[in-house]
Amino acid sequence: MKHLLGIDDLGAEGIGEVLRLADSFLEVTRRDIPKVPALRGKTVVSMFYEDSTRTRLSFETAAKRLSADTMTFSAGSSSLRKGESLLDTVRTVEAMGIDAIVVRHKSSGVPQRIAGWIDASIINAGDGWHEHPTQALLDVYTLRRRLGALEGVRIWIVGDVLHSRVARSGIQAFARMGCEVTVCGPPTLIPRGVEALGCNVSWSLDGIGEADVIYALRMQNERMTGSFVPSLREYAARYQIDGRRLRPNQLLMHPGPVNRGVELAGEVVDSPQALIVQQVESGVVVRMAVLYELLAGGGPAREASRFTQEDPTRVEPQPA
Amino acid sequence: MKHLLGIDDLGAEGIGEVLRLADSFLEVTRRDIPKVPALRGKTVVSMFYEDSTRTRLSFETAAKRLSADTMTFSAGSSSLRKGESLLDTVRTVEAMGIDAIVVRHKSSGVPQRIAGWIDASIINAGDGWHEHPTQALLDVYTLRRRLGALEGVRIWIVGDVLHSRVARSGIQAFARMGCEVTVCGPPTLIPRGVEALGCNVSWSLDGIGEADVIYALRMQNERMTGSFVPSLREYAARYQIDGRRLRPNQLLMHPGPVNRGVELAGEVVDSPQALIVQQVESGVVVRMAVLYELLAGGGPAREASRFTQEDPTRVEPQPA
Amino acid sequence: MKHLLGIDDLGAEGIGEVLRLADSFLEVTRRDIPKVPALRGKTVVSMFYEDSTRTRLSFETAAKRLSADTMTFSAGSSSLRKGESLLDTVRTVEAMGIDAIVVRHKSSGVPQRIAGWIDASIINAGDGWHEHPTQALLDVYTLRRRLGALEGVRIWIVGDVLHSRVARSGIQAFARMGCEVTVCGPPTLIPRGVEALGCNVSWSLDGIGEADVIYALRMQNERMTGSFVPSLREYAARYQIDGRRLRPNQLLMHPGPVNRGVELAGEVVDSPQALIVQQVESGVVVRMAVLYELLAGGGPAREASRFTQEDPTRVEPQPA
Repeated sequence: MKHLLGIDDLGAEGIGEVLRLADSFLEVTRRDIPKVPALRGKTVVSMFYEDSTRTRLSFETAAKRLSADTMTFSAGSSSLRKGESLLDTVRTVEAMGIDAIVVRHKSSGVPQRIAGWIDASIINAGDGWHEHPTQALLDVYTLRRRLGALEGVRIWIVGDVLHSRVARSGIQAFARMGCEVTVCGPPTLIPRGVEALGCNVSWSLDGIGEADVIYALRMQNERMTGSFVPSLREYAARYQIDGRRLRPNQLLMHPGPVNRGVELAGEVVDSPQALIVQQVESGVVVRMAVLYELLAGGGPAREASRFTQEDPTRVEPQPA
Repeated sequence: MKHLLGIDDLGAEGIGEVLRLADSFLEVTRRDIPKVPALRGKTVVSMFYEDSTRTRLSFETAAKRLSADTMTFSAGSSSLRKGESLLDTVRTVEAMGIDAIVVRHKSSGVPQRIAGWIDASIINAGDGWHEHPTQALLDVYTLRRRLGALEGVRIWIVGDVLHSRVARSGIQAFARMGCEVTVCGPPTLIPRGVEALGCNVSWSLDGIGEADVIYALRMQNERMTGSFVPSLREYAARYQIDGRRLRPNQLLMHPGPVNRGVELAGEVVDSPQALIVQQVESGVVVRMAVLYELLAGGGPAREASRFTQEDPTRVEPQPA
Repeated sequence: MKHLLGIDDLGAEGIGEVLRLADSFLEVTRRDIPKVPALRGKTVVSMFYEDSTRTRLSFETAAKRLSADTMTFSAGSSSLRKGESLLDTVRTVEAMGIDAIVVRHKSSGVPQRIAGWIDASIINAGDGWHEHPTQALLDVYTLRRRLGALEGVRIWIVGDVLHSRVARSGIQAFARMGCEVTVCGPPTLIPRGVEALGCNVSWSLDGIGEADVIYALRMQNERMTGSFVPSLREYAARYQIDGRRLRPNQLLMHPGPVNRGVELAGEVVDSPQALIVQQVESGVVVRMAVLYELLAGGGPAREASRFTQEDPTRVEPQPA
């Protein structure tokens, strides 16, 4: 596997391999020195045309724990303002000698286009309303750690499915793991034909009692003009998950950042049923797994270094 | 010691330990390779809700010299703009697996609140008008390097004491070292009851000839509406330290950045009596000491690594 | 050599030494782990008072491949906004213990002034309309890799020569290598007396068929008021290099970022005659050479480390 552009790139086997690698890296992150030299000398560039501190820091932490070097090319940076074409910017970055580009862009398909231009590995960190595959992988990983096998697990994804790359990647990934996925939200925020991705549709929370897992989506307040919902308050009245709607045996997930009082009431965010913090933890190890798979994937020599203990002193090295 | 929230957390003994550690690290920074592996694998995050390049770079330099990884979460970053609560932001950062957070915030008490929420060590890098403990420690360290014991040394802190966390931390730290502290400024800029921190008050520079050390505070021009001083020019006329007011045997300190022509005349900034550059130097080693104390404090194995020479080639390691 | 402020600092011999070092580092960047420990423990600070992601990332990549630590002090940073003088800012940065400052500033001569104030090495990364010496060095290096010896090679530098530090450094460097340099552009954009740098002047592209290399300059759209050219469209009609004007045997260079459709037509940017991507590649190795020359230059022990293989595992070091 060279790029990670969407969940389809992986197949069920690819997802399984990422989850297995993530388990190894989870062990690494619990060590006294949570680093391995697996990607030493590799350079990973973050190109975030849309700002996202959370996702960027997660990728950078993952890269550093693999001993890669990191560079950041952010939305406000000058080359973009100077009117350079995307093609020229990407070629320039590649010519500096980098191994992977983590791209976030407001337009769907930009990571795919970049992958067609250059030789470095491209990781889609969110493109428009299209996909956000590492989010889906960390969601699957989080849930599998909690529940074991996911076959037959019922997941309701609630909220603004229309604008959500998280939902689009998540439906596919959960479906591939054998979950029964239902998307739920006001008709204006459910895209037509979404069933083709492998999910059911509900326009109300009436049947949500059957869910094993409720996955609430972030309301992008900035996008919510009157054309989609009458008001955030009315949205909350009909679709907010609160202590009354969340049953004791259900788990709660959310990609963050949470709008407390909109899609989730504060009391459920802080409840032990919420896996939101665990999702962030999983994010780092799943992104380590993806970076490793793309940049070091393969050779047995590389495999061996996977479990190598980082030298704790750097001065008197000890055998692994 | 787990957190450094204010000077009170340290006690006289704690201050002494930080100063001793800072001496070791001063020796380290003078080596050909000024790094030690003491915090290898630790991650230190800067969360600066108020911008301060100078303090942030000082902490990051300190962290790097201890071989820690660093991450920056700055004021303009997207999570904050997206309306995430402070609690959720901090939990997210912690879930990425970090060991210490260096916090600057415009509201007093924020570092304390964060320390109550999470397990990582919290270092207060300035909260509102409240405290800035590493500044006070570096000031004490700078002065002790110059004067030796500080018992009985007379220090005048001049300027906007009211809005100054530097003053609030400094008064306590200098007093604990046995200095005699006087704060001086226009009545509108001296907080009521400040004597309780252990200092005298003067509303004019008349008696400043007695001082061994003059510590000028930065005028926060942006905060100076007419309600505090008639104008910066009038302030300067009455309280600026210039070549006429600074006696030949007095030392001059300032936390930076200096407003030349306001609280200090250019000629005294550039004079050999000024310790301003030494304060910046001390900042790095004192912050190394604080980070080390919080993150590696304790065990004898850790102690040993304190003086370990960093491997100069990384290829053919030499015995320490 | 302590600083790199302009091409004159180097002399023909200095240029030759940088080019030789760059060849070594080109070999390093092609290794599996493209790093050497040559500048381990050194700190390189980027102070970019004018934003330039491309140049800053190139220097930072170069520094990291030499195992130096890097810090960034950018245009929008707070110390500058807080009105600190350049002198005080630079002294502060130096007091944190740094070894080199890479400076970009909109005013000519700022790097020279800084070099007079402090002990660290200063590298001019572009000052006003004055010089940008590492750009000229990477241009020479790129062309020498393609053509071998540069004696007698005819280069036309086309465009806004008046505002171009790239041109000013380039003319001198190419002339010193024995090239015949012609500058070409509208009379309003050719500085008077430019011939003194060692070049010919042409106000039209008529004679450009004789050139071996066409070096197009970026039109700084933001600077182009009506006083210099009637419009970008008219400029393009008379001076744009397009597929008709570029002859099959000519090479094409540009410092980037390119304004497609202004100084260059898209078809020539993407043609195999363009060396634009190679210029970016050369940038990293030439900047490695400059940093190495300034910060590690000299001793035979240092020389040896030049070719040392970076330890691939950091755990079981192998002999070089």
